[in-house]
Amino acid sequence: MPDFTQIKLDIDGAIATITLHRPEKMNAFTNAMRDELIEAIDLTDADDAVRAVIVTGEGERAFCAGADLTPESGKGPFSADEEVDDLSDPVVRDGGGRLVMRLFNSKKPLIGACNGVAVGVGATMQLPFDMRLASENARFGFVFARRGITPEAASSWFLPRLVGMQTALEWCMTGRIFGADEALAAGLVRSVHAQGELMDAARGLAHEIAENTSALSVAMTRAMLWRLSAAEHPMMAHRIDSRAIYRLSRGQDAKEGIASFLEKRAPDFPGHVTTDMPDFYPWWQEPEYK
Amino acid sequence: MPDFTQIKLDIDGAIATITLHRPEKMNAFTNAMRDELIEAIDLTDADDAVRAVIVTGEGERAFCAGADLTPESGKGPFSADEEVDDLSDPVVRDGGGRLVMRLFNSKKPLIGACNGVAVGVGATMQLPFDMRLASENARFGFVFARRGITPEAASSWFLPRLVGMQTALEWCMTGRIFGADEALAAGLVRSVHAQGELMDAARGLAHEIAENTSALSVAMTRAMLWRLSAAEHPMMAHRIDSRAIYRLSRGQDAKEGIASFLEKRAPDFPGHVTTDMPDFYPWWQEPEYK
Amino acid sequence: MPDFTQIKLDIDGAIATITLHRPEKMNAFTNAMRDELIEAIDLTDADDAVRAVIVTGEGERAFCAGADLTPESGKGPFSADEEVDDLSDPVVRDGGGRLVMRLFNSKKPLIGACNGVAVGVGATMQLPFDMRLASENARFGFVFARRGITPEAASSWFLPRLVGMQTALEWCMTGRIFGADEALAAGLVRSVHAQGELMDAARGLAHEIAENTSALSVAMTRAMLWRLSAAEHPMMAHRIDSRAIYRLSRGQDAKEGIASFLEKRAPDFPGHVTTDMPDFYPWWQEPEYK
Repeated sequence: MPDFTQIKLDIDGAIATITLHRPEKMNAFTNAMRDELIEAIDLTDADDAVRAVIVTGEGERAFCAGADLTPESGKGPFSADEEVDDLSDPVVRDGGGRLVMRLFNSKKPLIGACNGVAVGVGATMQLPFDMRLASENARFGFVFARRGITPEAASSWFLPRLVGMQTALEWCMTGRIFGADEALAAGLVRSVHAQGELMDAARGLAHEIAENTSALSVAMTRAMLWRLSAAEHPMMAHRIDSRAIYRLSRGQDAKEGIASFLEKRAPDFPGHVTTDMPDFYPWWQEPEYK
Repeated sequence: MPDFTQIKLDIDGAIATITLHRPEKMNAFTNAMRDELIEAIDLTDADDAVRAVIVTGEGERAFCAGADLTPESGKGPFSADEEVDDLSDPVVRDGGGRLVMRLFNSKKPLIGACNGVAVGVGATMQLPFDMRLASENARFGFVFARRGITPEAASSWFLPRLVGMQTALEWCMTGRIFGADEALAAGLVRSVHAQGELMDAARGLAHEIAENTSALSVAMTRAMLWRLSAAEHPMMAHRIDSRAIYRLSRGQDAKEGIASFLEKRAPDFPGHVTTDMPDFYPWWQEPEYK
Repeated sequence: MPDFTQIKLDIDGAIATITLHRPEKMNAFTNAMRDELIEAIDLTDADDAVRAVIVTGEGERAFCAGADLTPESGKGPFSADEEVDDLSDPVVRDGGGRLVMRLFNSKKPLIGACNGVAVGVGATMQLPFDMRLASENARFGFVFARRGITPEAASSWFLPRLVGMQTALEWCMTGRIFGADEALAAGLVRSVHAQGELMDAARGLAHEIAENTSALSVAMTRAMLWRLSAAEHPMMAHRIDSRAIYRLSRGQDAKEGIASFLEKRAPDFPGHVTTDMPDFYPWWQEPEYK
């Protein structure tokens, strides 16, 4: 396990838990935290024992209070290594965006457990999670317009998919802070829990996936829904899911899925995402920053 | 009327009702059922008297319990005619997807009346319907990950358009079965009814369309909303609806629509979709499976 | 200030209010009204003092009762100047669509205050607003199918982004009139108010934006959310928001945003949208009618 300094990664059976861990700084985001989070997702993708990943923040105050703007944080998340005129230079790339591009490609389900304040990149980094739970004291804010900057971390793409255009626009144009109830009503989070019950609820959802489903199926489902829902025509989905059904229905996981269903028992799927993804995966060419 | 064996097609005035009809098999889906459903939609599109199509299942237990996996069903819906290496071969095409591509191009409004269990393709085939009603005992399940396969029938494209990304991901990643109330809260169905009142409610909605609107307008509306909402820019919609308003506002249905409105009487639109669609329809080239 | 005849434009501090003003005609839409609305948006975009724009209708009966179909309105909104066969001729362009294409490019937040009946183009012109409030007596109708025409003003693109596909299809296929409660439940409007409190609520929201946020940030946010949410991949958003964060975080508004935050005081952002938008804005080439 790497020697992380700003996050913790705990693996307990099928469930990995990533904890943003700078409690004295309300888990504020830095370039180092970004790199550690990306490395943690590389690890959970590479570990076939991990079937779901929970992301939460240390303590009861904050999930992540946004980018660390204090001088002592060293090179802040807004500071590129050097000044450049060419905005296509990769040094220009937004740090939150680098992170969410990696989260977008996770092969494991990502479950957010928002345990407190989540503003700025602390809110936007949660959008590519597949499911988001919050505690009653969670507070969210897409505060960029109040800081003189703009939404980042590709949130202009992610947020409307979760809450619709009207709510996304209001939250980003006012920059206001809002509570867990408003997040639930708008669909940003799927459920709200007492602080002491948040992690159990997240683990319950993770176990529901781990104990009932094929890892290959879930990794494919994740890529298909996030990517194909944005296509201009359902034929793009039909092309891919035809291939997926054809290949997977002839595989060991489908045999076990149908057998366990007919025998009314828990399944024991043999497939591994590191070695057994169908031959046409990935079917896309990932666009590059430019 | 064709000699259907796995569905029934009843036409009563302006309303066609398609009933999945294998009650001894919980209306499970087969290749034969797929072909009969496609033929039924061909018929409703070709019959100008039909103004809306209701799709339901026979009996009180099931709308459709998914793909028929039993050996006696003959060639199952997952079995291609032959083994091929070339995944672009049309033999690879998913059967649910073949059906929904046809539903996607229906000229008549499709109204689902989900009368019981709807899992797997029994759930995904409902997504290209325009409106979905359910009875209190309806149950839904996007169970693919529990069977070792993936969402099919282009549901990765359709489902997020109806319920948003978060709910779509949770339903497909857990594969859980859920009831009519959860389907209603998420927006999968528009309304829930007592079992004995489901068909009357569906017919009421069908009649509301049939008695008040132009068939040409509805067929155009259907193609425009499903297709243009997925464009990258609203100009694509503006190009098409400008043509539509220009042509239709000079037509007989617009004359009758304005006259009946000003005279405060029920309209009697003369237009027929078989002969009177505007000259630029279809404006798209349908993508092929490849 | 231009000599408007069918609308009023009032500027009070940071808030511009546009009032559709043909009360004797229920503020019905004409080509002249369309041109005046476009001119008003040109003015609010060019006036750096304006931070938000409210659009409402004169009187207590109607926001806008749709296109003026009466002969005395002169050349109706459906009548092109001449008959043409070439549907790519700009004379074919739908008037509501010309208006919403301009609204789509507003640099200022658009807030709808729907004070009564809004049918046809009276409903569709509201869809590119960023936020919509309604009074209790508001009534909406996407009535096109009852008039023998089709949805216009690019509403096939806008409406599903606000209320999802199922509701959009039902409203457009039935053409029914519905009240403020149904609009609120479906997400068409963000809030419903007593008639006498509607404008105060709209102004409160406008002031919340004006007093707390950077005009540059809000103009960028508006373009980013409307445009990038429709991209096929989040990388498109990442490319643009990386540029935006890089440029804006080095600007005067970000300095003021962070300083006012750390000093716990109201901000006083110096940036102006007429002169200080980042060098890569606009990053798109606007598609043309063809």
